[in-house]
Amino acid sequence: MPIEETTVTLPKSEIPRTWYNVLPDLPEPLEPYLTPAGSPVKPEDLSAIFPASLIEQELSPRRHFDIPEAVVEALSRWRPTPLVRAAALEAALGVKSKIFYKNESVSPSGSHKSNTAIAQAYYNKEAGIRRLATETGAGQWGTALAIAGRAFRLEVRVYMVRVSLEQKPYRKTIMNLMGAEVLSSPSQLTAAGRKALAEDPDTLGTLGLAISEAVEDAASRPDTNYSLGSVLNHVVLHQTVIGQELKRQLKALGLSPDYLVACHGGGSNFGGMAAPFVPELKDGARITLIAAEPDSCPTLTRGKFTHDYGDAAALTPLLPMYTLGKDFQPPAIHAGGLRYHGASPIVSALVKSGMVTPQAVGGSDLFRFASLFARTEYVIPAPESAHALAAACLKALELERAGTPGVIVFVLSGHGLLDLSAYEDFINTY
Amino acid sequence: MPIEETTVTLPKSEIPRTWYNVLPDLPEPLEPYLTPAGSPVKPEDLSAIFPASLIEQELSPRRHFDIPEAVVEALSRWRPTPLVRAAALEAALGVKSKIFYKNESVSPSGSHKSNTAIAQAYYNKEAGIRRLATETGAGQWGTALAIAGRAFRLEVRVYMVRVSLEQKPYRKTIMNLMGAEVLSSPSQLTAAGRKALAEDPDTLGTLGLAISEAVEDAASRPDTNYSLGSVLNHVVLHQTVIGQELKRQLKALGLSPDYLVACHGGGSNFGGMAAPFVPELKDGARITLIAAEPDSCPTLTRGKFTHDYGDAAALTPLLPMYTLGKDFQPPAIHAGGLRYHGASPIVSALVKSGMVTPQAVGGSDLFRFASLFARTEYVIPAPESAHALAAACLKALELERAGTPGVIVFVLSGHGLLDLSAYEDFINTY
Repeated sequence: MPIEETTVTLPKSEIPRTWYNVLPDLPEPLEPYLTPAGSPVKPEDLSAIFPASLIEQELSPRRHFDIPEAVVEALSRWRPTPLVRAAALEAALGVKSKIFYKNESVSPSGSHKSNTAIAQAYYNKEAGIRRLATETGAGQWGTALAIAGRAFRLEVRVYMVRVSLEQKPYRKTIMNLMGAEVLSSPSQLTAAGRKALAEDPDTLGTLGLAISEAVEDAASRPDTNYSLGSVLNHVVLHQTVIGQELKRQLKALGLSPDYLVACHGGGSNFGGMAAPFVPELKDGARITLIAAEPDSCPTLTRGKFTHDYGDAAALTPLLPMYTLGKDFQPPAIHAGGLRYHGASPIVSALVKSGMVTPQAVGGSDLFRFASLFARTEYVIPAPESAHALAAACLKALELERAGTPGVIVFVLSGHGLLDLSAYEDFINTY
Repeated sequence: MPIEETTVTLPKSEIPRTWYNVLPDLPEPLEPYLTPAGSPVKPEDLSAIFPASLIEQELSPRRHFDIPEAVVEALSRWRPTPLVRAAALEAALGVKSKIFYKNESVSPSGSHKSNTAIAQAYYNKEAGIRRLATETGAGQWGTALAIAGRAFRLEVRVYMVRVSLEQKPYRKTIMNLMGAEVLSSPSQLTAAGRKALAEDPDTLGTLGLAISEAVEDAASRPDTNYSLGSVLNHVVLHQTVIGQELKRQLKALGLSPDYLVACHGGGSNFGGMAAPFVPELKDGARITLIAAEPDSCPTLTRGKFTHDYGDAAALTPLLPMYTLGKDFQPPAIHAGGLRYHGASPIVSALVKSGMVTPQAVGGSDLFRFASLFARTEYVIPAPESAHALAAACLKALELERAGTPGVIVFVLSGHGLLDLSAYEDFINTY
């Protein structure tokens, strides 16, 4: 294969200049968010923790939002991200399908999370906010917001799920190096944290509980807003740079994708990849969108579609989504970013309409394909991203058995250089 | 600054197709390597541990070697590497000098070491070798050779300096993941290792001793060769892709550099950057080449120019180089890749002739500038690369005081994502 065809890198001039809002193009209108009393959430209900600009993006029917110049400039440090043909992986699998990965791991935080972190920090700064509070699971989101806070001179406090902090202590080092404060969640600094610790001092923590702590922190201080790394519409909106670039890159290759795969925790990475393809799907394009989630936290495949809280302490509005229940305690898997009871309302709506196929993966498949990828493509996937990789590999093998090879693209949402304890466990287990 | 001007990424088609051999262009001919008996080393003296092709590259007066197609293809996975304007760093330093970095950290191993690892694995495979033995300090070289061994289907055994293995356990995880075997050096598997352990069971290990172990391993098995990550001429030769690309990138920007800076351990990263500029320097170009070394292992600034062994156990030929003596025990600094008593004969010759300026840096400067770089450029430098960064920043500040801003380029030889214990120590110290 000629060297030029293995990687598609768009020029800096092709960074998307608008975000695509899928809300007006969903098969059915999104059900409203609800207050605990059951009435639809109004913009002012969210203003204690979000700036008006992000609330508008959360609820607007407008199809396109201009990306502010300062955000484009910050994104240009690593975007457009490359689309890479995984030819060595194909050869090792023995498949005739073409497998590509959209490499979001090249960002400063090592994951796609930087795409929205930069945007959220920008809008909060513009709104006169001085400080952001947030939660993080595996640490990718916390790292991304720490860097974005540095870029726009905002203080950042991160509530990090205890089990992840213990598994990945160096994530804290990076966040500290960037100037952010990192606390183990549950912490003693919030009512939600104290309650959880009183009930179970040995709790591993969950993303849902860490969200409660960060929301409580933000709501209690006028200089502070809350920043969420996934789930919400404005987060998916910011992540649509992934899908937009991907469309252009596939076009440059003259290829139509058959399968687009991304992992699903809260839904921002999956939604950001998938949303820009929704108009084509509505026009009859034959593309299968696969949301790969952990079999131990099977929100989309085994959860219930209903209105549920986004956090454990019931501080957020009720969102229309697939959920395992706000009190669901996932096991301590290494893919901390996927340990979430709920799901993006946008992705939930796409799953409910049949436009997206959820798939649960797990066990030895994950690390078998992750190590095969590392040994063939020389990139170590984050445990979260390994779910997308595994689903892509399983699909390629299935197509091979059926004699119908296709074009499969998955998003490598992050690298695993800060998740090597996961690989060490794997090497010692198998 | 327009986005397009912040990063210069050459197209894949501009990967260098030849390596540049500086030997015929050195100010004075290199003195011969010597056997312990004092006679010049002949090619056949090296054939127990190196293939004929690499021995030829080591000793040849030929100016250019074609890069084999398979090597170009492997390098193309990450090359050409970007040249990035560190505009945010300049602003934070408050300097009018332009600071650029050549980002070698984007390779599969996270450092420049992959450039020669790929080439060495290729030539050994071509020569029918089945297995490679090597040493590693901080783990960058071992990681690079583990990946290269995987690429060309060679077994790899890595003797890793004990103190580095303890500081950076996840380097071993990566090497194991890539299929390499990793031993703590000194080990019980070699005579050199057993002797060192008998003398001091608590020894931290040194690069010089780990080299002895790997050379002994390779010399004792006909299916095994030795692979060295620095020092030797053929290693510098393979690294000239750095300097060659850099010249083209600066030309694309229409800039003449005033200062070119790289860190110096064994000399491959520095030599690979510097060698392609030697012809221009001989023609009178006003470029200052700065080799930044640790003040705790000051080979070039405080060492003696003489013939000395490359390893602790005196198994290698005597090389004409600056040396602190083969038994020098550097302290356990985090920049394990720079803990070496000797220096590349090529770089030594350039220093001796006055064409290269060595500079020792260390202490809090290192991490002060490393964390400033992380907070402005969002890339965490390897502790080794932090030496080049610190020298570049000190130069920029000096030029600012003198009112003579210039163009400064340094090589970011590797990232520090696997060196976070160094940053954790720093955060806890300062």
